[in-house]
Amino acid sequence: MSSDVSEPRLDDEVAGLKELYRDFAAADLMPLWTQRDDLMPVAPRPTAVPAVWRWSQLYPLAQRAGELVPVGRGGERRAIALANPGIPGRPYTTATLWAAIQYLGPHEVAPSHRHTQTAFRFVLDGQGVWTNVDGDAVRMSRGDLLLTPGWSFHEHHNTTDSPMAWIDGLDIPLIDQLDAGFYEFGPTELSSCATPERSRSERLWGHPGLRPVLAPDRPSSPLVAYRWEHTDAALRDQLDCADEGLAFTVEPGHAAVRFTNPTTGRDALRTIRIEMHRVCGGVSTEPVRAVGSAVWQIFAGRGRLQVGETSFEVGTGDLFAVPSWTRFALTAADDLDAFRFSDEPVYEALGLDRVDGGAGR
Amino acid sequence: MSSDVSEPRLDDEVAGLKELYRDFAAADLMPLWTQRDDLMPVAPRPTAVPAVWRWSQLYPLAQRAGELVPVGRGGERRAIALANPGIPGRPYTTATLWAAIQYLGPHEVAPSHRHTQTAFRFVLDGQGVWTNVDGDAVRMSRGDLLLTPGWSFHEHHNTTDSPMAWIDGLDIPLIDQLDAGFYEFGPTELSSCATPERSRSERLWGHPGLRPVLAPDRPSSPLVAYRWEHTDAALRDQLDCADEGLAFTVEPGHAAVRFTNPTTGRDALRTIRIEMHRVCGGVSTEPVRAVGSAVWQIFAGRGRLQVGETSFEVGTGDLFAVPSWTRFALTAADDLDAFRFSDEPVYEALGLDRVDGGAGR
Amino acid sequence: MSSDVSEPRLDDEVAGLKELYRDFAAADLMPLWTQRDDLMPVAPRPTAVPAVWRWSQLYPLAQRAGELVPVGRGGERRAIALANPGIPGRPYTTATLWAAIQYLGPHEVAPSHRHTQTAFRFVLDGQGVWTNVDGDAVRMSRGDLLLTPGWSFHEHHNTTDSPMAWIDGLDIPLIDQLDAGFYEFGPTELSSCATPERSRSERLWGHPGLRPVLAPDRPSSPLVAYRWEHTDAALRDQLDCADEGLAFTVEPGHAAVRFTNPTTGRDALRTIRIEMHRVCGGVSTEPVRAVGSAVWQIFAGRGRLQVGETSFEVGTGDLFAVPSWTRFALTAADDLDAFRFSDEPVYEALGLDRVDGGAGR
Amino acid sequence: MSSDVSEPRLDDEVAGLKELYRDFAAADLMPLWTQRDDLMPVAPRPTAVPAVWRWSQLYPLAQRAGELVPVGRGGERRAIALANPGIPGRPYTTATLWAAIQYLGPHEVAPSHRHTQTAFRFVLDGQGVWTNVDGDAVRMSRGDLLLTPGWSFHEHHNTTDSPMAWIDGLDIPLIDQLDAGFYEFGPTELSSCATPERSRSERLWGHPGLRPVLAPDRPSSPLVAYRWEHTDAALRDQLDCADEGLAFTVEPGHAAVRFTNPTTGRDALRTIRIEMHRVCGGVSTEPVRAVGSAVWQIFAGRGRLQVGETSFEVGTGDLFAVPSWTRFALTAADDLDAFRFSDEPVYEALGLDRVDGGAGR
Repeated sequence: MSSDVSEPRLDDEVAGLKELYRDFAAADLMPLWTQRDDLMPVAPRPTAVPAVWRWSQLYPLAQRAGELVPVGRGGERRAIALANPGIPGRPYTTATLWAAIQYLGPHEVAPSHRHTQTAFRFVLDGQGVWTNVDGDAVRMSRGDLLLTPGWSFHEHHNTTDSPMAWIDGLDIPLIDQLDAGFYEFGPTELSSCATPERSRSERLWGHPGLRPVLAPDRPSSPLVAYRWEHTDAALRDQLDCADEGLAFTVEPGHAAVRFTNPTTGRDALRTIRIEMHRVCGGVSTEPVRAVGSAVWQIFAGRGRLQVGETSFEVGTGDLFAVPSWTRFALTAADDLDAFRFSDEPVYEALGLDRVDGGAGR
Repeated sequence: MSSDVSEPRLDDEVAGLKELYRDFAAADLMPLWTQRDDLMPVAPRPTAVPAVWRWSQLYPLAQRAGELVPVGRGGERRAIALANPGIPGRPYTTATLWAAIQYLGPHEVAPSHRHTQTAFRFVLDGQGVWTNVDGDAVRMSRGDLLLTPGWSFHEHHNTTDSPMAWIDGLDIPLIDQLDAGFYEFGPTELSSCATPERSRSERLWGHPGLRPVLAPDRPSSPLVAYRWEHTDAALRDQLDCADEGLAFTVEPGHAAVRFTNPTTGRDALRTIRIEMHRVCGGVSTEPVRAVGSAVWQIFAGRGRLQVGETSFEVGTGDLFAVPSWTRFALTAADDLDAFRFSDEPVYEALGLDRVDGGAGR
Repeated sequence: MSSDVSEPRLDDEVAGLKELYRDFAAADLMPLWTQRDDLMPVAPRPTAVPAVWRWSQLYPLAQRAGELVPVGRGGERRAIALANPGIPGRPYTTATLWAAIQYLGPHEVAPSHRHTQTAFRFVLDGQGVWTNVDGDAVRMSRGDLLLTPGWSFHEHHNTTDSPMAWIDGLDIPLIDQLDAGFYEFGPTELSSCATPERSRSERLWGHPGLRPVLAPDRPSSPLVAYRWEHTDAALRDQLDCADEGLAFTVEPGHAAVRFTNPTTGRDALRTIRIEMHRVCGGVSTEPVRAVGSAVWQIFAGRGRLQVGETSFEVGTGDLFAVPSWTRFALTAADDLDAFRFSDEPVYEALGLDRVDGGAGR
Repeated sequence: MSSDVSEPRLDDEVAGLKELYRDFAAADLMPLWTQRDDLMPVAPRPTAVPAVWRWSQLYPLAQRAGELVPVGRGGERRAIALANPGIPGRPYTTATLWAAIQYLGPHEVAPSHRHTQTAFRFVLDGQGVWTNVDGDAVRMSRGDLLLTPGWSFHEHHNTTDSPMAWIDGLDIPLIDQLDAGFYEFGPTELSSCATPERSRSERLWGHPGLRPVLAPDRPSSPLVAYRWEHTDAALRDQLDCADEGLAFTVEPGHAAVRFTNPTTGRDALRTIRIEMHRVCGGVSTEPVRAVGSAVWQIFAGRGRLQVGETSFEVGTGDLFAVPSWTRFALTAADDLDAFRFSDEPVYEALGLDRVDGGAGR
């Protein structure tokens, strides 16, 4: 036992132990007692580290990829993943989440495919790309969140003369570690060249509190586009209500909305939680640490983060990773909108969620 | 046993039986065998009958009540219930539902109270009255649905120089038969004289697919106003999508939306289902009968109903009752919008729902 | 309004009001303001009253029925209902529950039928009758609870030379008021003449915590026989554990178990809760009142009840009804086992449950 | 893009691409297009391989550890993990599951601790050890399953003069990869030296279909001991019922029961499914592959497995691992009882479950 390691032993005992461990290895066995603390730590010790990726560095690299790397069948997407420096060799932004910048040049098409990995797109800036989700043409514009739930066919096409870039979020590391990934190529022809102002999903599901009488519940949201216009209004209204004394903000000066599945009221995606936060200038959020990890992108404004022992200055477009059980707080230099996604639904579904600190969460 | 009733019996036997039944009665007992078919029919035999109430008759009577009957503490509301002629002596529109026209004169106030009965208002026409729901001032306008979930304080005040009438729907008969009603008077002073364009509930919950991060699930909808503008758009969009080949209407030429609780995706109220239907001119709905009852009001347009053996011509404002397990179909003379509420959530919660016919329901 | 009723009115007003009320009646309308307090009381005012039925009176009457009334198709069952004296003309034991004594003579058969009404049998004493539930032959013995969930075919046959009596419990009043009853006669031939020690349901579902891997969830319990041997042991164990300091009894000296559906852990029946209580001699239960009603039968022992304003002495076999929101307490003269069934699952499913007092319920 | 890799490129392009990839690496970025197929395979490609561990080899090694390695605080348990040869360096039996043989000498004590990892013990043979689960002394005997749900304190003590070995199953790899592990040492003194025939958990929860009225639902089973006597009877009854024509076996000649949480009817543990299978001599199970992995131990009998491309002869005590999406079938040489645990509840909770083949699963 580890507690006895420092005690003197007779040579015979040492030899016997060595031989035992050799025999364990030959039999595909490993003793618990030599690695108990590593396997079962007192609290999570994530391999992933707090990390930031600057938009000012990401976007030019994506542009260079746009010039050098074609997009098409096989590689499928011109997406460049944020690889956490604590997890060498794997393109994992955190233990469970994959984030990337995707870039599509003028009139380019990213071909149709589907996979059990759950995905979304979030648009920092620009417009002109459409994502067809199971044949439904969905416009992508500044501040919009677009979903491609697991196993729905999706493809992107840029109908303009300008390139466009956005953020992809997926649960690739989770699905990889769970050996649960399936993948299928779709048709090579675009399923739809339409460019409607509103997708079918918005027409059927985008009316607050109303659902088609015959529509059954769905595990993921049937509404696949959440427009900035609504998100912005919801945050503004929430802060206004708080000014009138209604306690629905996360904490004073900090509003947040969650993107939900209108058939259940729960998270829009099964394995990924997505939220938009608005923190008023000068406000610091209450430090919080939670089991599970998150990735954030500053949508607008500037601020300062504290993630574990590390602190960063961040501005519009910057992304950062918050590993499991790592204390996090954000101070807004001026009014700041921050897009956040996390793996919390996974932990809640398995009874593994735990939070320490934070404002009422 | 009933099967033996017609057989000759010896006088002694008859006398013995008479004495037995007398002794049963004296002991507060009743034999099953003499009333089995009445107690346990082959299919529901509702006491309530198909019935229609004409707006052209209702509104003038409500006006006369407005002149003759004050509104205030005690009687509480100038509401006149639709009493099903099949259920004598009780103001029940169906076995479980209570519907009424409520009328509020210029600058009148209906005082605050709360009850475990679940309630809503639906506005056929007019505006100028506010309902305060737990202190939140909610505007009432044409086509709007307003909720007052069980045990929320509510009061009405008319801020204009004109009277206004609307429809109340409650589960009074259900709660009455279940001996589950509690009631409490609120303060005599108005909780709020505010007349905001949007209620707090709409500001916090009226953004499609978005919810405040800290808000917990609620058994009834926290969104207490569903505006006609959204309902109308949802119906129009649903019919347009159907024209494009998407099968989300109830049946061809018949769209319908359900009012839901955004925290769960389920019915907005716990015991009452509420829907708006749009049937295109010339379309007849597929006949359907279901366990449970419904009340409809024609919001716009004209049509013809078949309810059981009875048929009615109906137009704007007319209300009608469809008892349990009574076949129902509607033919629209011209484009017709029909507001519907029913007790289906009760039957679904108890595993008692059953449907025969209808289009895909 | 009622608050103004005592004020003097001009004759014209009175005449106008009379005419208005006459016109209301002609139009199938009823004003709320004259009956608000009746329709929406401050707290439930059940029509049913606290009532007791003595086994010493019930059993002889059932015996006389056994001599005078044949059992067979049409009347179906020789069951005699406990009719609450507060609900005249209807065989309702409470607002939602129907209880009866059923009597089957030597070698008699009660024919097969099924209905949406949920039912159970509880055996005070005796044996020798089998209930076939969807063809599964289920022995009935002292202290056993047997289920016939809604829409399962069931028939009874007495294989002995002695009569047998037991208690039936159903939700007939609830289903009646909800217009939700369907009924079907089964084959006239017995589905099974088998008399096995254990039913199939017990063989498949009667092993604690174990379920057949392929068996899906069921809304009602697939285990249709709960044997006294297990119920007795569970109560004894619960009291023993309490003696050792584990707080799982209802209150000191008062153990209780609930009969549950092993596929869900919830009530064995969808609309009826069933429990067995053991109260040690000298113990008084904490007074409690709850929305919803209950019927009890003393299985063994003697005690004294307080139900609302009424108090009763009760002994083995006696049944009594506890209406909604009526305060109830029981004092055991000596060790007392009491079988209880109630409609609480109905109120819980609809969000209408409310309790006042009691020990930790 | 991978589809273009074989095409000739100009030297400049190649150089540009090399520089781009270098700059990606420097910026903690990884392109998707060079590793898409690895990250998102067409179907799961588990690292874990089909593997078997022989009891004839395991037990002697555990015995030798018993002689050479003390058990006590720090190392905590004399448990030797089955390390899948496809996952080098980690003691993972599959991607999510950890299985080990644990050995406790005469009068030894394994000290108290708790962790968020979910655990169980299964006893191939022997007796004399007690596991205290949150202070409840639970006997361990042949064929028994004992639970220690996440975050419950547990300790083992051998009260006899003979050693005892058993199998431990935990979700260590899952919790490790999710960074969700918390761990706490308990008191050094035994919480209980009692050696009762039945644990408190069995006395409160071990009665079929009965639950203490006041006991709330629990995420894991409050029943922490499932005795072989019940498991054996349930399997025998299930096969007998099948002989009588009731289709509740998995397939002809193959019975199986699942260990469940009596408060919910769902899996006894939140992240691990546990079952016992009985396959009659000569029967082959229908080949099946499913997302997620399983570990089996032959409890009695002999047979032949096919796992993917590999086949094994197995006998009493042998353990084997079935990785995700690997086809599996078992042929019983003679009557065979096989204990199985898997991670299926994880996939079901996340909507990632998928099955191909098998008999009705």
